[in-house]
Amino acid sequence: MSTLGIVKRNIVRADAAAVEKLGRFGVATIHEAMGRVGLMKPHMRPVYRGARICGTAVTVLLQPGDNWMMHVAAEQLQPGDVVVAACTSENEDGFFGDLLATSFQARGARGLVIDGGVRDVDELERMGFPVFSKAIHAKGTIKATLGSVNIPVVCAGAIVNPGDVVVADVDGVVVVPAALAQTVADAAEKRESFEGEKRAKLAAGVLGLDMYKMREPLAAAGLKYID
Amino acid sequence: MSTLGIVKRNIVRADAAAVEKLGRFGVATIHEAMGRVGLMKPHMRPVYRGARICGTAVTVLLQPGDNWMMHVAAEQLQPGDVVVAACTSENEDGFFGDLLATSFQARGARGLVIDGGVRDVDELERMGFPVFSKAIHAKGTIKATLGSVNIPVVCAGAIVNPGDVVVADVDGVVVVPAALAQTVADAAEKRESFEGEKRAKLAAGVLGLDMYKMREPLAAAGLKYID
Amino acid sequence: MSTLGIVKRNIVRADAAAVEKLGRFGVATIHEAMGRVGLMKPHMRPVYRGARICGTAVTVLLQPGDNWMMHVAAEQLQPGDVVVAACTSENEDGFFGDLLATSFQARGARGLVIDGGVRDVDELERMGFPVFSKAIHAKGTIKATLGSVNIPVVCAGAIVNPGDVVVADVDGVVVVPAALAQTVADAAEKRESFEGEKRAKLAAGVLGLDMYKMREPLAAAGLKYID
Amino acid sequence: MSTLGIVKRNIVRADAAAVEKLGRFGVATIHEAMGRVGLMKPHMRPVYRGARICGTAVTVLLQPGDNWMMHVAAEQLQPGDVVVAACTSENEDGFFGDLLATSFQARGARGLVIDGGVRDVDELERMGFPVFSKAIHAKGTIKATLGSVNIPVVCAGAIVNPGDVVVADVDGVVVVPAALAQTVADAAEKRESFEGEKRAKLAAGVLGLDMYKMREPLAAAGLKYID
Amino acid sequence: MSTLGIVKRNIVRADAAAVEKLGRFGVATIHEAMGRVGLMKPHMRPVYRGARICGTAVTVLLQPGDNWMMHVAAEQLQPGDVVVAACTSENEDGFFGDLLATSFQARGARGLVIDGGVRDVDELERMGFPVFSKAIHAKGTIKATLGSVNIPVVCAGAIVNPGDVVVADVDGVVVVPAALAQTVADAAEKRESFEGEKRAKLAAGVLGLDMYKMREPLAAAGLKYID
Amino acid sequence: MSTLGIVKRNIVRADAAAVEKLGRFGVATIHEAMGRVGLMKPHMRPVYRGARICGTAVTVLLQPGDNWMMHVAAEQLQPGDVVVAACTSENEDGFFGDLLATSFQARGARGLVIDGGVRDVDELERMGFPVFSKAIHAKGTIKATLGSVNIPVVCAGAIVNPGDVVVADVDGVVVVPAALAQTVADAAEKRESFEGEKRAKLAAGVLGLDMYKMREPLAAAGLKYID
Repeated sequence: MSTLGIVKRNIVRADAAAVEKLGRFGVATIHEAMGRVGLMKPHMRPVYRGARICGTAVTVLLQPGDNWMMHVAAEQLQPGDVVVAACTSENEDGFFGDLLATSFQARGARGLVIDGGVRDVDELERMGFPVFSKAIHAKGTIKATLGSVNIPVVCAGAIVNPGDVVVADVDGVVVVPAALAQTVADAAEKRESFEGEKRAKLAAGVLGLDMYKMREPLAAAGLKYID
Repeated sequence: MSTLGIVKRNIVRADAAAVEKLGRFGVATIHEAMGRVGLMKPHMRPVYRGARICGTAVTVLLQPGDNWMMHVAAEQLQPGDVVVAACTSENEDGFFGDLLATSFQARGARGLVIDGGVRDVDELERMGFPVFSKAIHAKGTIKATLGSVNIPVVCAGAIVNPGDVVVADVDGVVVVPAALAQTVADAAEKRESFEGEKRAKLAAGVLGLDMYKMREPLAAAGLKYID
Repeated sequence: MSTLGIVKRNIVRADAAAVEKLGRFGVATIHEAMGRVGLMKPHMRPVYRGARICGTAVTVLLQPGDNWMMHVAAEQLQPGDVVVAACTSENEDGFFGDLLATSFQARGARGLVIDGGVRDVDELERMGFPVFSKAIHAKGTIKATLGSVNIPVVCAGAIVNPGDVVVADVDGVVVVPAALAQTVADAAEKRESFEGEKRAKLAAGVLGLDMYKMREPLAAAGLKYID
Repeated sequence: MSTLGIVKRNIVRADAAAVEKLGRFGVATIHEAMGRVGLMKPHMRPVYRGARICGTAVTVLLQPGDNWMMHVAAEQLQPGDVVVAACTSENEDGFFGDLLATSFQARGARGLVIDGGVRDVDELERMGFPVFSKAIHAKGTIKATLGSVNIPVVCAGAIVNPGDVVVADVDGVVVVPAALAQTVADAAEKRESFEGEKRAKLAAGVLGLDMYKMREPLAAAGLKYID
Repeated sequence: MSTLGIVKRNIVRADAAAVEKLGRFGVATIHEAMGRVGLMKPHMRPVYRGARICGTAVTVLLQPGDNWMMHVAAEQLQPGDVVVAACTSENEDGFFGDLLATSFQARGARGLVIDGGVRDVDELERMGFPVFSKAIHAKGTIKATLGSVNIPVVCAGAIVNPGDVVVADVDGVVVVPAALAQTVADAAEKRESFEGEKRAKLAAGVLGLDMYKMREPLAAAGLKYID
Repeated sequence: MSTLGIVKRNIVRADAAAVEKLGRFGVATIHEAMGRVGLMKPHMRPVYRGARICGTAVTVLLQPGDNWMMHVAAEQLQPGDVVVAACTSENEDGFFGDLLATSFQARGARGLVIDGGVRDVDELERMGFPVFSKAIHAKGTIKATLGSVNIPVVCAGAIVNPGDVVVADVDGVVVVPAALAQTVADAAEKRESFEGEKRAKLAAGVLGLDMYKMREPLAAAGLKYID
């Protein structure tokens, strides 16, 4: 009955072209294009400046202090995947370091998103293997208890299903359900196309108050100007 | 495309008999019976001593500082339901107080589980309306932005689908998927039936080391006794 | 130039009748009556169940690990006052215990609100001296550095001027500027007078959706009902 | 070389009479009597109202998510002991519940102090087995990795050596080195004997400013009174 | 009666020459020159390495999840201003991004200090628009509820009045009341002039113990040297 | 009786050659070589990118808001030492800045590890004086209360004895007892010598599942592969 101790081998990954297209947009734009949903909590930070990820999720459910399932996940990786690791309780141990990164990279993985700790951060930067995590911690882990691979997980407050698109940059991490990848990518493109004009107007000194026609609703809401 | 702005009216609630049976067990027992999954994070605490809930989830997704959807949820409540409220971002405002509690109670709701703040806590205790929350805060909220009712939500780290069984006591909050309610209730019963004998042995001075036959595996793991 | 090292002796306390009237309402009601402002952050909690305070603020600015100014404040207390203590940096030491409580009580003080730690909590409950604090901690403090008494302070996120009315109950702590005490008390009374009718309707099964006429604005905002 | 995987059987417990004497004083008094050292951090809270402990430490070093060593510790317990459990990383899992409490109680243990989570809190209260912990959490743990028993540990920021006296009440938890138990108990007694007179003076309206002769040093430090 | 829903147009900004002079000193120096007050809490961090701000405050009070007032504030900005944004409750949503930054920059603003979240951090760095915030978060906000502009606010624990000088660097954020700007600037200059000599002595191996003549007061306080 | 107010002058520092050898390895490697113990908590972070320390500990116990003992410690420093500063309660004040850094550097110190705040961070980077801390904060401190120098301290959860080796890099801070320095350095060397081969295999696509022979124990634990 438990959802622990399971590895799902065949998962439906989001359409590759849609993934590539999503990779052209920032996390904030994609989140807006989805209708303002899908974000992980803001404690998820890049472990080095400039880290960026876009790929399809292979999910891992870890036990506290135990990274056994990371090795099980490695076998399920395909080029273009991103490992998304959750834990059954809050734990900041260093579940991941340069050896696992070497293995993941050899399998074609594009990065790791983990609601826990990682280590060997300087080496990860040298390797160009981007990681977004809750903590950096040298604490070692054991290999003794089963979790699962490729089941739905909650990572930093977001539901991630295997095959979903995960995009991470300096502004955070967003999860796009596989079935919505193309639609969201198109919506992001459309949204971004409007931004240039807005930016030009604002740079020229036009106020958002006028550009977005806010003066009337502000007055209706009761805003009062005093001297 | 967004999952915001939706109210699902017809949800499949867990079998009533299974819910009642689950109500006879503690949260820790049910969590173990499920294979050690399903718990919310430990920041979810009862707002008064002795609060306890068992019922079927009507889920609500709130926006920060806005409790509009709580009123929308009230109409969807049936006797035996528990409102499970998540928020699109971390926020401890007082989304809920005695007036909403009066309305929920009139609809037959058994309690509220909310990853946010509540107020009027003394009155909630007098009414006997149990609440488990992240915070107690008098801060008022507005009614301006759409969230959703009866979509899957992540509440305090746990996925909750409408109709799932939610059990809360002093040890925390656990979510049992509707389809597993009877199986988990039976497993909890079985588990509890074993505990009496164990407790009697331990009370008589038998050591867990012997009762659980741990001495050999401990030695195999390398445990050393020194003087 | 510094605001440290100052004791202001003559402060204008809020009108006594207004203070007494405010004491009849809960913190949530007063906060709403003020237009939803004036609350301290939700980490301020009563140190024992049932604690409640309403009185006029004598403010204290402490240094971390140092409670010297609490003794200076004692002399400035008049019957009906509440000591409101802030600290120049975040610190959870036990700045206050039963001896200071005895002194404050002897001076007629009604309680303490402190963004720091306190100790001797069982004795405080026996004495009936209510305290709202950030922490309970036995850690002792020294008497070596000047802070100030009766200057404006920021306590748990709220500006408190000496003489302001401070009301604290299980839902939190609210600060009412002295000049607004009567107006807020009247508004709180009015607000509460409306609640009885609302509560009766909701208890009778009327939905907030109908009582507050929310159906139309919800539809206008785009809310969709699905089956 | 590692300090993991060790159980020390013979430890030197603090003198029994000194332990009993320490048990007559509050945590704040003992901390002061020691010269203001020895406290655990303030996140250590009693799991039920009224919990109080005084006894000699049997220390346990746990691994995250693993309570194997608690069973190993049970065998080392003697009447009058208190289990003090630390963890190799921050973890709030429920390492302890009513079965282990039954076993510990049968061995004569007086309580548990744990920098982690516990569960079955209602049952612990019914049993009268006091626990001070960082969290309450139903999360189950495994039995797979070695820690140690009766080595020096850091628990909630305090060094605890096996045999030390641990006193816990609503104000926190203090650790008295075994060799100092009698001296500290005597100092606590002396300190408390002075408090009655001070309390009487303060209750009679004498100010701490005068009783502690603070006016001169305050003036020397530059305190200014303004109107 | 509420302080919400107000925009004050005419504010008294600190003297321009004093602001420029303050801009030559670090935050730590200015804080010391003020007598060790005026700092925001240390959770306020620059969103990119090297960010630095000095200017006059235009204050904004936001509602959680709502950045409407940021647009209202834009109109009140004059060259040399810094936007200081507080929120009525703790909230880490992304209230600010590159479009608002473009608008603020076009108005001559020198940066933003916000006790909340921001996004588009890479673009902010490219634009050279410095921001100090509590969080980085892609989460979008709405425009539905009134806050205020140019009222006194509490931002990260510090009182900020419109027109005050705000200085931010890697060590934190300090607020200088407008009326004290010149005095504090002069005191900072004086303070810094003494530091060169001290630094030279310390670099030459002179101990602070001797330079500050601490040996005698340390001995008087009871310091004991042992071997 | 108190451990406060003491300066120990003669401490036994770890063997210089062993210290130098430890300096060649990363914190994660040393932690593993010690048997997975000795780490400080992950809130200890470098104040600038690229900071790294290896040296022998001179320990300091500070009081909150007071850095007097830092000056006392300076006199005890020898070339190759690292100052390790703990505090009697949690406090993030800026206990340390460029002047003290100048003094420490002049004495030959290699860096500072402090469970508190520091300031003048840009200047510290320019000086090349590495610091690992809990916070960056401009808040000034006083010189009024005794702590101790060169007594055992608990810093960020780790016991540090004077003379122990402290190694800090981007992955955290580890403490090696002086008596174990050579053994741990040798074990770290051995451990690292094995990593090259492992890394090469993993880079070539060999799975950890095979390299570490995990398939059998995973199956024995009950892992199930599904499609």
